Amino acid sequence: MSIGVIATLKVQVDKTDEFEGIFTELAKQVRANEPGNLAYQLTKSRTEPGTYKVLESYKDQDALTHHGGTDYFKAAGPKLGGVLAGRPEIEYLDGVG
Amino acid sequence: MSIGVIATLKVQVDKTDEFEGIFTELAKQVRANEPGNLAYQLTKSRTEPGTYKVLESYKDQDALTHHGGTDYFKAAGPKLGGVLAGRPEIEYLDGVG
Repeated sequence: MSIGVIATLKVQVDKTDEFEGIFTELAKQVRANEPGNLAYQLTKSRTEPGTYKVLESYKDQDALTHHGGTDYFKAAGPKLGGVLAGRPEIEYLDGVG
Repeated sequence: MSIGVIATLKVQVDKTDEFEGIFTELAKQVRANEPGNLAYQLTKSRTEPGTYKVLESYKDQDALTHHGGTDYFKAAGPKLGGVLAGRPEIEYLDGVG
């Protein structure tokens, strides 16, 4: 069964450029290296400044577990820690169809 | 600029099978006919029975406008109306990267 993820990230409002640079690089690595990742789209809110949502889709739980264990994902954590305004909020959803 | 959409749909709890059938058919049409659609993943909440979220991504505004104007999308509206428990809540997000 496929799995969807909505990751909501609140970024310090004076660090959005830095955040977008870090995250764009991460997304590039995900797309290049994870055949089990079906979508990984960074978006930003139109109404809440500094709020970003990542729309993610994975073929199955194994693909999601693999994503979280990659070197580049683990390396992004500390970098993002310096620009986020709080803990990420992650919603996991069961894919249908 | 790409565009992300999170569509939250609340379905009558005794009509989820019917809903999933209607929506799976719609998603098949979207994937077959819309090169400007980058992702169209139906998911369901793990915590709220009857709550579904569609994770969508489009190449640009034109692709999203085209999606909303297709015959199969317009035909799905009345069918979904019979199984939803309220109005859909649609969040539009600006793609980054």
